[in-house]
This record gives sequence, C-alpha cells and structure tokens, in this order.
Amino acid sequence: MIQVAILGFGTVGSGVAEVLTGHEELIRRRTGQPYGIKYILDVRDFPDSPFSSLLINDFSVIEEDPEIQVVVETIGGTGVAYDFTRRALSAGKNVVTSNKELVACHGYELLQLAKEHKVSYLFEASVGGGIPVIHPLSQCLTANEVTEITGILNGTTNYILTRMIGEGLSFEAALKEAQENGYAERDPSADIDGDDACRKICILAAVAFGRHVYPVQVPTDGITDVTLPDVDYADSAGKKIKLLGRCMKNQDGTVTAFVAPHLVDQSDPLASVTDVFNAIKIHGDAVGDVMFYGAGAGKLPTASAVVSDVIEAGENAGGKIQYDWEDGGDDVMTPPDELRSSWYVRSDGTAESVHTTFPDAGILARHGQPDDEVAFLTGPMTRSELENSLNGMECRSVFRVLD
Amino acid sequence: MIQVAILGFGTVGSGVAEVLTGHEELIRRRTGQPYGIKYILDVRDFPDSPFSSLLINDFSVIEEDPEIQVVVETIGGTGVAYDFTRRALSAGKNVVTSNKELVACHGYELLQLAKEHKVSYLFEASVGGGIPVIHPLSQCLTANEVTEITGILNGTTNYILTRMIGEGLSFEAALKEAQENGYAERDPSADIDGDDACRKICILAAVAFGRHVYPVQVPTDGITDVTLPDVDYADSAGKKIKLLGRCMKNQDGTVTAFVAPHLVDQSDPLASVTDVFNAIKIHGDAVGDVMFYGAGAGKLPTASAVVSDVIEAGENAGGKIQYDWEDGGDDVMTPPDELRSSWYVRSDGTAESVHTTFPDAGILARHGQPDDEVAFLTGPMTRSELENSLNGMECRSVFRVLD
Repeated sequence: MIQVAILGFGTVGSGVAEVLTGHEELIRRRTGQPYGIKYILDVRDFPDSPFSSLLINDFSVIEEDPEIQVVVETIGGTGVAYDFTRRALSAGKNVVTSNKELVACHGYELLQLAKEHKVSYLFEASVGGGIPVIHPLSQCLTANEVTEITGILNGTTNYILTRMIGEGLSFEAALKEAQENGYAERDPSADIDGDDACRKICILAAVAFGRHVYPVQVPTDGITDVTLPDVDYADSAGKKIKLLGRCMKNQDGTVTAFVAPHLVDQSDPLASVTDVFNAIKIHGDAVGDVMFYGAGAGKLPTASAVVSDVIEAGENAGGKIQYDWEDGGDDVMTPPDELRSSWYVRSDGTAESVHTTFPDAGILARHGQPDDEVAFLTGPMTRSELENSLNGMECRSVFRVLD
Repeated sequence: MIQVAILGFGTVGSGVAEVLTGHEELIRRRTGQPYGIKYILDVRDFPDSPFSSLLINDFSVIEEDPEIQVVVETIGGTGVAYDFTRRALSAGKNVVTSNKELVACHGYELLQLAKEHKVSYLFEASVGGGIPVIHPLSQCLTANEVTEITGILNGTTNYILTRMIGEGLSFEAALKEAQENGYAERDPSADIDGDDACRKICILAAVAFGRHVYPVQVPTDGITDVTLPDVDYADSAGKKIKLLGRCMKNQDGTVTAFVAPHLVDQSDPLASVTDVFNAIKIHGDAVGDVMFYGAGAGKLPTASAVVSDVIEAGENAGGKIQYDWEDGGDDVMTPPDELRSSWYVRSDGTAESVHTTFPDAGILARHGQPDDEVAFLTGPMTRSELENSLNGMECRSVFRVLD
C-alpha cells in the first residue's frame, strides 16, 4: 500500500481525495498496488466530510510517519506550502503539487532538494490543470530541440475574452459574469493581470529550456486594457484577441518569456480555444507544432493530473530524476522588446496620418468607429522601432500580432 | 552506448536515422547515455546516403548481435515486418515501431511476446505521427476511467475534406491535388476508404479499454461518398464534415468502435483541425475532454515519436511493462448500429415528405439546390430506427452528426 498525505482540503485537495478513493480499484488494477490516503492536513475541521476521520492539523505527524511515501501539496502560495514541501522532501517523501506559484518561484531549489533525498517533486497539475503537458514535454519530445511554447494558460481570462468576442460584453460585464459563474475569484487580479499565466510560462520555460525562469524576469501584461473596439478591429482582420504566455529559445541560447494579449489569426488552432479551456502549443524542431488542449482548472481535472503524478511518484522507487534544471539568472533572459512582430495599434488620428509614418500599415475598420480614431496593423518590427515610429501619436491600445 | 538497428530505410526509417544522429548530443545530455545506429536493414542499396556503410540486408546479423538493444521497425505491413518483430522480441531486443497495421492486427500477441522476454514493444508513432498520444493516454490519464476517444486520424482525408470545404473542390479534384502535393499515395485506397484510420482507432481502443480490437471488427466508411452538396448543407447548419475514428466503452463493458464521416459542429475543437493535421480527443471521467493536436504523418514528426520510444526502451532496463492488454473477441464488441445520434440525410423528396416521417427534422438549404432534393438533420436515433423511417426514400447521403 502506497500511503498518501494531502496538505490542504480545498477544491483541489478534496478532488484528489475523491479521485484517489473513487478510483481505488482502477488504480490498483493498473499499477498492481493499492494507494490509500492516511492523512489530510488542514487548519479547518470538516465534520460532514466522509474524510473527516483523516483530518489532522499538525504537519509533524506526516513528516515523522515513515509509512507516508507521497505528500500532495494543494495549499497554494509560497508561505506554509514552501515550508512543508521542504520538510517533506527532506524527510525523504515524494511531493506532488498543483501549486504553480511555488514551482515558479522555488522550483529549482525544491528539485535540488528532491534530488539530494532521492525522491520525486512532480507538478503536472501546475500548468494546464488536467491537460497532460509537463510530462509529454519532458518525456515524449525528448528527441526534439524545443524552440518555442505559446499557451492560453489562464481559463478565467480566456472566458472573459470569449464573452467579449462572442457576445460583445464589455470587459467589466464579462468579468462580473465570470465571477457569478465561479470562474473568477472575488479578487480577480492574479488572473486578469496575467500573474497566473506568468507563473505557468516560467514552469514551461524551465522544463523546455533547462534553466529556471523567475516570474519577476517575465514582463507581464493582463487583459484589463483590452476593449470592445479592439475586439471588433481584430475581428475585421480575421483575428481573435487572446492572452498568451510565450517563451522561446534564442539563437544565442538565452530565453525570451512574456505574457501579453495578442491578435491571433483565426486559422491558428489557438484561436479556436474558447471559454475556460486552455491550450499549449509546443514547437519542436522534428515534430513541428503539437498542441495540448483541455480544462485548465477545476476540481476533478486538476485532481486527475495530481493523481497521475502520485502514481508516478509511487512507482519511482528507484529515485529516477524526472525533472532537473539549472538555476536562473539575468544572463538567461533576453527581453521581449527585441522580438520582431507585427503590431496592432489603435490611436487618435486618421488613415492619412498613419500612412505618413507607416506606409505599409493595413488600416482596419469597425462599426461605429469615431472620426478621430484609427486602427492598423504594422509590418514586423521590435517594440522600440514601433515606439520610435509612434512618437507623438496618442495610442489607445497596442498589442502584438502572433506570427 | 545503446545500439540501435533500423529495419526499412524509407521515409520514416531515414527520418529516424536523421533525428538520432542529428540530435546525438542532445539525447546524450538528456538521457545520460549515447545512442548509436549500428545497422540499417533494407533490400535496396543507398550508395549516396551518409548512412550507406550501415546498410545490411540479412536480418540474422541483427538478431544475433548481442550489442543491439533496440530494433526500430519501419518496414510497414504484416509480412516481413511481423516475422522480424517476432524474431527481434524473441532474441530479447526491444522493438519500436510506426507500423499501425502490425500493431492493430498483431499487437496483443507481440506484447505477450515482449512480456515473456522482458523487453519493450512501443508504438507511439503508430497513431497521430509525432503527436504524443499513446504515452499520455496510458501514463498521464491513469487516474481516469476513459470512456470515449474521437479522432481525426488520417491526414490525407482531412486534407481532401479541408479543400472541399474551403475551396469548393470536388472530391476527385481534391484527391488529385493531395496526390500532387505528396499527401496521398498513387493508390489512395487505404486512406480514402478509412482503413488507415481504422487501424489507429483499434490501437487507441486497446490502450484505453484493455482488450484488443481487430480491424475486421470495426465498421469502416471512408470519404468517397462525401459530395460538395453535403459540404454545403453541413455548412448551412454550422458544421464541418470530418472523417472520425471513434471508440467508446459501453455501460455493459463492451466496446463500440467505427470509422465514418461525421458532421461536427464548428464549436467543437475537432472542427478547427484542418489540412493534414490530426487531433485526438479523449474523454476521461475526471479530466473531461483533452485533445492532442499536431502533424499526423511526415518524415521528421513520425521520427520524433519513434526516437522518444527508442529512448524509453533504452532506459527501461528493468523490463517494466509499459503496455499490456487482453486478447479481443466477438464478445468485446457492440456494433455502432446501437449508438443513438442525430443523422444528416440528403435524399430525393421535399420538406413536406420529410416532415411526414420525421416531424422534428431540421430542414437544410443550399445554393443551387435542385427541386427534387432535400437534406435534413434528424433527432437522436439508432441506425435501424433511421432506416425504418427512411423506408422508401431514395437516400443520396447519410452521415452521423457528432454530439
């Protein structure tokens, strides 16, 4: 029997308990051994839960119990979750997590600790919820030099954009609807400001490129500046506005990573990813583009990914190192300002004034367009080239166009 | 050094040689050990190939060389490939293949042989080309009861349908174009009749549901009956015609599997899969729908999947069983005739005549519709219910609608 302890009995933690017990027979049949939950750690009591007898609030019980082989950390954040993860790994226990903030901020250090103690630190659920992506990226694309990853990594913002695009709701109305449907928190800032997507692209970049990328190193724009006029202009050019997390390996070996709204052509499979779904497109030099799609969050999808990691940890008695990367540093990164792309600009002015500065610009049009507003797509250029050219124009929105 | 022998130096075999040697350093860094090609078996000579010195034509050299740990079979078919695979496994060598016909027809038996000799038989490249799908299905969704798989599994037919839908080409013209672009064989029957998709859905069903499904057990329709009028009627209902391979686990434990053209709603992510791309959508009870997308064929994408299996085989010195299922039989299958769905029907007649028999039918319309033609969508019913109702009507096309 592989004994498991779950830290945090919130949405994901209770989902893990449900999947592990509900699929006890299935898992035993597939793996040849039973998995059981011995403890659930939470500061709260859950007297009405079928798992109430497993609840404890003293972590040292788990830490000191030699029977516990796998600790599932679904507390979130970098406070007590960080402390417990360090202690669990140091006590020789495998740790499985859905905590993207902890992996993005301390993944390198925690993987080193895991290696030292010959245990696993696994985090499939930290990116893309239930979508298998970390594992396929590291195990199935081994024969590829991965050069670029582009993802719709946050379901809340994708839902809001989908409602703006499909129903013409304003950002504020779409956010309110997302909150009413339980897709957005009461304080939605981590989602709408792009921080959640930022943490996920950091993790993907580290797995793909072999060096830690810290969230503070990743320029991050959310979707609060996306307006309905932008959505309409994009639509007129056959494009959808999507919040993308992107990372790429440059020729010089450095990494460029950023999060920002982009105009995505409707022929790109990412453009068809709607509602709360996530999708991660990976470019490998042999395989070309592959894309992984599914529910990016939610109780049971996330639990599905956590439990597959629990099984992988349980089967890894030999202490095989699944993930390993070097520490990051400022020398790793090249800022996205250097990245050439087309740009979408909405500004004060007229088509004539735009053509003076951008002779090749494609002018866009929308219903209800005011006389003093112009929107256009530029040719490929860097951010500073764009800003030099925009000198003096009153810009209302500036977004990249995905190639 | 893990020594590899490649059987068959065609498109995929030469791609494998290229990826293994071109990425020698990358693979050594990632896996901690070098992989080298010792032999390439082919009946032909390739005097101008950089690999010409490795070419041999006597399989017993490979079979009897104790240094060979992994045999890559890219011959195809069930003749000599079957014989060599049996002999390689019996000689205690891991075998990696892209040969879907062999896995679909003899997978159960070959996996038994592999188990007996404590080696791997791996076939990621047999479904979806370079797309990781077999591995994620078996390793990353372990915590799920998989209930249904729906796939666009053949790039040639998807290309033809995409050109019919997008450009209004006839089936014959689109096929000719596919042949000119190298996307279809001179004899295209295995693709357009659905046999290739059939083999792939057999493999997915076996991996997901645990019992072998043989191609002869899977009713298979290709795309030769899809016409431009059908494409137009589908479009008028917001749907695209796609050739789907489908398998599902029924409540009674049996499996239903079939290949047929379907009308797919444009809101379904499968509808956006165009050109030669493939996508496989998997439904698990915890994760919901996940979809894997990418190049379903081609030299380097397929080689990418083969080489990741070569690495997995090379690392599996402990003889861990990666894939295992029971043999199939007639008791496994329930024919798709029992499956209720909406249907698309194009027939002689008028809306009035249709409404006599199908009071709830949704009547469709297209430009240039002849007076004596009618097309409609039925409510959910089985095939025999449909055929009873159609009694006496002259049907031109009948396709299922994907729920």
